[in-house]
Amino acid sequence: MAEDMADIIEDVLDARRVEAIQDAVDAQDAQRLDSLLDPLHAADIADLLEQISPTVRRELLRLWPEGIDGDILSELEEGIREEVIESLSPDVLAEAVRTLDTDDVVDILEDMEAADQDRLLGALDKADRVAVEQALAYPEYSAGRLMQREVVVAPEDWNVGQAIDYMRSVETLPDQFYHVILVDPRMKPRGYVTLGRVLSSRRDVLLHDIVEDSFRTIEAHEPEADVAYIFNHYHLISCAVVDAHDRLVGVITIDDAMNVLDEEHEEDMLRMAGVDDEASLSDTVIEAAKGRAVWLFVNLLTAILASLVISAFAETINQMVALAVLMPIVASMGGNAGTQTMTVAVRALATRDLTSQNALRVIWREAAVGAINGCIFGLLMALIAGWWFGIPMLAVVIGVAMVLTHIAAAAGGILIPMGLQRFGVDPALASGPFVTTVTDVVGFFAFLGLASWALL
Amino acid sequence: MAEDMADIIEDVLDARRVEAIQDAVDAQDAQRLDSLLDPLHAADIADLLEQISPTVRRELLRLWPEGIDGDILSELEEGIREEVIESLSPDVLAEAVRTLDTDDVVDILEDMEAADQDRLLGALDKADRVAVEQALAYPEYSAGRLMQREVVVAPEDWNVGQAIDYMRSVETLPDQFYHVILVDPRMKPRGYVTLGRVLSSRRDVLLHDIVEDSFRTIEAHEPEADVAYIFNHYHLISCAVVDAHDRLVGVITIDDAMNVLDEEHEEDMLRMAGVDDEASLSDTVIEAAKGRAVWLFVNLLTAILASLVISAFAETINQMVALAVLMPIVASMGGNAGTQTMTVAVRALATRDLTSQNALRVIWREAAVGAINGCIFGLLMALIAGWWFGIPMLAVVIGVAMVLTHIAAAAGGILIPMGLQRFGVDPALASGPFVTTVTDVVGFFAFLGLASWALL
Repeated sequence: MAEDMADIIEDVLDARRVEAIQDAVDAQDAQRLDSLLDPLHAADIADLLEQISPTVRRELLRLWPEGIDGDILSELEEGIREEVIESLSPDVLAEAVRTLDTDDVVDILEDMEAADQDRLLGALDKADRVAVEQALAYPEYSAGRLMQREVVVAPEDWNVGQAIDYMRSVETLPDQFYHVILVDPRMKPRGYVTLGRVLSSRRDVLLHDIVEDSFRTIEAHEPEADVAYIFNHYHLISCAVVDAHDRLVGVITIDDAMNVLDEEHEEDMLRMAGVDDEASLSDTVIEAAKGRAVWLFVNLLTAILASLVISAFAETINQMVALAVLMPIVASMGGNAGTQTMTVAVRALATRDLTSQNALRVIWREAAVGAINGCIFGLLMALIAGWWFGIPMLAVVIGVAMVLTHIAAAAGGILIPMGLQRFGVDPALASGPFVTTVTDVVGFFAFLGLASWALL
Repeated sequence: MAEDMADIIEDVLDARRVEAIQDAVDAQDAQRLDSLLDPLHAADIADLLEQISPTVRRELLRLWPEGIDGDILSELEEGIREEVIESLSPDVLAEAVRTLDTDDVVDILEDMEAADQDRLLGALDKADRVAVEQALAYPEYSAGRLMQREVVVAPEDWNVGQAIDYMRSVETLPDQFYHVILVDPRMKPRGYVTLGRVLSSRRDVLLHDIVEDSFRTIEAHEPEADVAYIFNHYHLISCAVVDAHDRLVGVITIDDAMNVLDEEHEEDMLRMAGVDDEASLSDTVIEAAKGRAVWLFVNLLTAILASLVISAFAETINQMVALAVLMPIVASMGGNAGTQTMTVAVRALATRDLTSQNALRVIWREAAVGAINGCIFGLLMALIAGWWFGIPMLAVVIGVAMVLTHIAAAAGGILIPMGLQRFGVDPALASGPFVTTVTDVVGFFAFLGLASWALL
């Protein structure tokens, strides 16, 4: 996917434009700066602010204080956003957040310190403030935090004409809405009708005769990962959110779900590599170093464990230094085979393709794959080692050790993520160190153990 | 994200229901099978078909031939889909594909063999067949393959009333549409109006007075990865697709973009782990083994390269076996630090957060992070090695080697993905082996080289 990176962005944020912007900042030319930035989309301005150096950013914010609006704040990543908010005057900040939908205000607020939150909440109209505070009462990463409270509803016995007349009469409709939700007198949602259907049906058609099959609701306390899954799995565009009594409290639209899906993926990818899952390119050196040190420390412990296995065979290595030369190959191949299986397993658990129904079949398949590739590469490595060191038994030992390590890698790669998931631990977070420990320990033990038994 | 996996799916596809379905298949009870499957959503039936064993699947398809419709085919993954299509009679297959939108037919067709493609195309109405064939004329993974050709357009001088009357008069509107696209007399798109705006505006309001800012077009030959990026970056719900002469040829909706985003993520994740990016849980053992052997082979070559470095210092190891015990720790820590940096870099390139504007700053930051963590873990490991083997100079050697390896890991982790991208190679695909080679070679060379110079 990456060959064409930056093609699009460079259209908008190409080096020339960025340079022109930096020149305007250097020249303290606020007017030119405004004429360069004003035509850009909020998402591109946010990208620009993230990509320029902190010094240029500070200068730019000083020269262009009125330019920052709610949309730009929404698009910024957390660290930079805090910096930008601090640079804004209370009036500009108030104006910026007032233009946003409540779900976007919640999104900005939830990352902020309590004192800054109060400052921002104080800038809102009363009605919006209440809506935002209610959303914040739901747990972090829940559907309640994601939803917008602006919902277009109609009584379930209305017809198309009544719905259209109602929508024409309402002063403000939400920016984004794709369905009219039908509710009963107690505000329980009963179904929804797409706007396309409303528009293409005669005025006397009853709404409940043109509802969509795809309608479903989600409880406000459900985790946002489930929201993303439901949208992706059932191809939803919007989904009604209900409280514990099944009453409609809001609606989530697909753009929010897409955002969550993107964040979940990023989290999985970073966690699997042992990087703090909130890492971003604008983290300082210290933040980034800290975010990675934790996993490096865990890795140090597992590496020492593997070394202890080697040291148990120090005498064997002393008698045949070829073992020291070859042993990293066994461990490296096992580690890679284990990572392959583990990645497939973590991904399949995340997409819910790996379930209790097919677990046994998948485990067997992985074991078989491990055995096959273990035999292929064990044989290949045996030939190479035999030719390299001219000791037939050494060739046999490394071949057999590689088969065993590959099978252990397959077993560890599939069973460890599944086991972690069963104990409520995110498999993406913790599988890596466990799998590597298994492959290193088994690899060194099998190779050096067989060698000390067969060769000396 | 994973603690709550399967919560939702288990609601629908819980073990009990799956068991009941398998029982019905065993009892050859077609009627009970139908009553169990019929209420399920197509996506859930597809999941079920993927999760049961091949034998049960074959029996189920035999007992429930009329049940398979186009939606289920759309939801199935490629391998299983082929199997299902082969089991269907020509009539059932024809009926199944006829109910689908053309973009879904294209999605099914593009994975099929030429002979099967012809069979399926033959089942379509002439108009649909032409539309599908035109879509297939666009390159694979392009916007043209993704788009639907059913578009709702209006001349740019119409008012709201004319648009509503037109939509009421058209016999079939697309299943999914969210905007009316305004076109000039030569079918060049000029803007779009959300259905919500159409519904809430008076009949005499001109469409071009209520167009959305967010409107943009994409050329049909653009890669689908760019489509996903544009939707995510600019929060689009639908996007007009144009040909080389800027004429409207179709529209892409967010659900398709979300799908691509999901696939791109999966591809990146699998590629980084060295797994064939089209791997799926329903691959056979042979397919899976083959899909991973390629990368294992590359890894074998890099592991042998690292071994050659070790063998250059065989004499040194022979004189101090502690070196053999400790050297995997240096390589393992370097490999992990390199993977951390590489993952951050690959992700930032994919999200276009890492660009030529901030490359230099990011490279410096990574080098600094590597130096800091290298010093911390170098010092820690020096203390451990000193205490373990009681040789002060050995402690110094491993400490210094770890600092050097961490800096090399940081440099390799960031420069290799950026370099590959510049040469048009997907960084997710090829960074891993290069980075590991760098860290292994530098790690072994620094540690053993320093040891032979300082210790002997």
